[in-house]
Amino acid sequence: MLKQNLNIPGPSELPLEVLHALGTQMVANRGDGRFSRALEEIVKSAQEIMNTKNEILLFTSSGTGGMESAIVNTLSPGDNILVCINGEFGSRFALIAEKFGVEIHRAESGWGKPINLDAVQEKLIEDHNKKIKAVFAIHNETSTGVLNDLEELGSMVSRHGALFVVDAVSSVGAVEFRADQWHVDVAITASQKGLMAPPGLSLICVSEKAWKAVAEAKMPRYYWDYRLARGLFGKTRGVPDSQLPGIPITPSIALIFALQKSLALLKEEGLANVYRRHRKISKALRAGVKALGLQLIAGEGFASPTVTVVLLPDELKGEEARQILREKYNIVVAPGQKKLHQNGIRIGHIGYMDLKDIIAVLTGLEGALAEKGLIDKSALGTGAGVAHRIYISGE
Amino acid sequence: MLKQNLNIPGPSELPLEVLHALGTQMVANRGDGRFSRALEEIVKSAQEIMNTKNEILLFTSSGTGGMESAIVNTLSPGDNILVCINGEFGSRFALIAEKFGVEIHRAESGWGKPINLDAVQEKLIEDHNKKIKAVFAIHNETSTGVLNDLEELGSMVSRHGALFVVDAVSSVGAVEFRADQWHVDVAITASQKGLMAPPGLSLICVSEKAWKAVAEAKMPRYYWDYRLARGLFGKTRGVPDSQLPGIPITPSIALIFALQKSLALLKEEGLANVYRRHRKISKALRAGVKALGLQLIAGEGFASPTVTVVLLPDELKGEEARQILREKYNIVVAPGQKKLHQNGIRIGHIGYMDLKDIIAVLTGLEGALAEKGLIDKSALGTGAGVAHRIYISGE
Repeated sequence: MLKQNLNIPGPSELPLEVLHALGTQMVANRGDGRFSRALEEIVKSAQEIMNTKNEILLFTSSGTGGMESAIVNTLSPGDNILVCINGEFGSRFALIAEKFGVEIHRAESGWGKPINLDAVQEKLIEDHNKKIKAVFAIHNETSTGVLNDLEELGSMVSRHGALFVVDAVSSVGAVEFRADQWHVDVAITASQKGLMAPPGLSLICVSEKAWKAVAEAKMPRYYWDYRLARGLFGKTRGVPDSQLPGIPITPSIALIFALQKSLALLKEEGLANVYRRHRKISKALRAGVKALGLQLIAGEGFASPTVTVVLLPDELKGEEARQILREKYNIVVAPGQKKLHQNGIRIGHIGYMDLKDIIAVLTGLEGALAEKGLIDKSALGTGAGVAHRIYISGE
Repeated sequence: MLKQNLNIPGPSELPLEVLHALGTQMVANRGDGRFSRALEEIVKSAQEIMNTKNEILLFTSSGTGGMESAIVNTLSPGDNILVCINGEFGSRFALIAEKFGVEIHRAESGWGKPINLDAVQEKLIEDHNKKIKAVFAIHNETSTGVLNDLEELGSMVSRHGALFVVDAVSSVGAVEFRADQWHVDVAITASQKGLMAPPGLSLICVSEKAWKAVAEAKMPRYYWDYRLARGLFGKTRGVPDSQLPGIPITPSIALIFALQKSLALLKEEGLANVYRRHRKISKALRAGVKALGLQLIAGEGFASPTVTVVLLPDELKGEEARQILREKYNIVVAPGQKKLHQNGIRIGHIGYMDLKDIIAVLTGLEGALAEKGLIDKSALGTGAGVAHRIYISGE
């Protein structure tokens, strides 16, 4: 029997209600009331969750596809962009843009640190001729477990006049996201993390300013074309059928029904409660990890509420810890990425998660440490106990 | 209560077993045995179904995404291709390629006719300097219900030396497809038609010759990059984990489990039986439609086994017929496309379908005709009866 705990930073385990919604029989993707209601509900919920009045688009793709869509819809080959890099996903954003012939400028900071706002400010001030067309940033950097503060960054970008493009894949639905207030022009998220649906859908929030860039962008595109994609949601904007652009693309119906259900569950819990739950279990997990003498990559002030990256001692290492967790405890955590591959593990606590999940992970970690003689068996329960204590001590 | 019959040319209704498989709890997309087994089974089954030894790739996208992937992976901007057009999907293939800066040559034939092989031959013979890099064709043209014969076309293309790129979205799994024998270099199909899974996955079959083109193609790409996508299936080719390219893209896990199950169901029935079933119900439906005095778009010799396009009289028209079928019989058929929009309807009979489905559609059509006084009420059952008779009269 395999009663698995899946604690990677997405995909997360799904609530039973969402799994059941997946099993909804197919309907026609045009003209069926149940399907258009699902789309309407998704748009409305996504706008609430992202705190935006902007249009929401939906693609059948992973989050990476959503990232690519932002590049090909807002830029032309040879355009200059500034990418804020404080981990692997920032680097990937730059890599994808580079593939499409974009000139990349970088504002980098060390792994485990938040985005370097001074470096960004400097680059933007230096840019007298407004060559920088867009600033790209990651809201929640999953490779290091760092949550970037987008409020000040967004203001800087807005003052400069560039587009602000944000990968919010591992934050939206689990961490507060304020697209309009933070001047976000294109926000990208995906179904399988905070939104508690299976992987396979990306959601894009597009500002008026971004739509102007879409009209001018010269990158070749078809599948990702926002002008085509908005056709799917025309009805939700009151556009009559006859004026809608053709939508030649069959949407991912099963996942859309699942997302409709998962967003309803988030609303039922209340977004403020959802965010508090993530903050609380993250804080408790961090306390538990430290109580076991292990090191956290991200500092207190900017630790992610959705993923925690832990540095293990050389006597245990990441791969061995993951093996013990998997084989002896049926707990799956993710390996560290790039420079954290050897000693790091990434613990996901995003979506359908509560205290019991991080107690389970801490229990597994304690077991791995004890097995390697790094803690005494009498210390089993120490990390979990501390986590529990922090959890019940309030916010 | 809505006991719906969904008779559009995909998505089709799904077998209950597939709906249940969709509800499988999430697993890690790396390192989980259940998930890698699902991928292995899918590759093996897809190779059997497509009669190929070539590699199979999987994308989280609609079939249109798969079409785009073939363009950006095998071509460079300014390349010349020949597109065989005998309906809307051929035109779309040309449209997408055009968006990416490809020079399009066309071999056209009228709607309802198969691909014009003479026109293709002529264009290929004229091409002394081998400027034509690839020939694009649609196997089953869903807009008109025409199945193109790819054997001779494939030989022509092979003699010329161009790549042969085939949209097999609405054929694979329901109609025999012989990728290797027909010299198909890139075949594109999707999950939601003959393969009886929900929409959201495209499957691509890539020949050795196509891989060479992939290495030389200069179109910018990341999400669609076949070199990246093959990483997902590295294990199935015996490539050790350590030598696999990174796969930064989260696959559509729920749909992959569904596809694993639906392919198992196809194998259980036996592919020859599946194809015979589609041929038989298609033939029966056509006979029934004709018995009702209605016109078929596709001629007998090349009628599609998966979709039938019917031309309705001006006294009924497509939209009204669809409304009567939907509102009075809970049967959904698709509208005609482009020049067939006014009077055409498209009846899908692909995937999880048997005689009873087309009897239902014919019953609805009879009802619509009777309601408009186009047939007498005493003629109810005529079309269905003829269809049934043809069906039991053997292959």
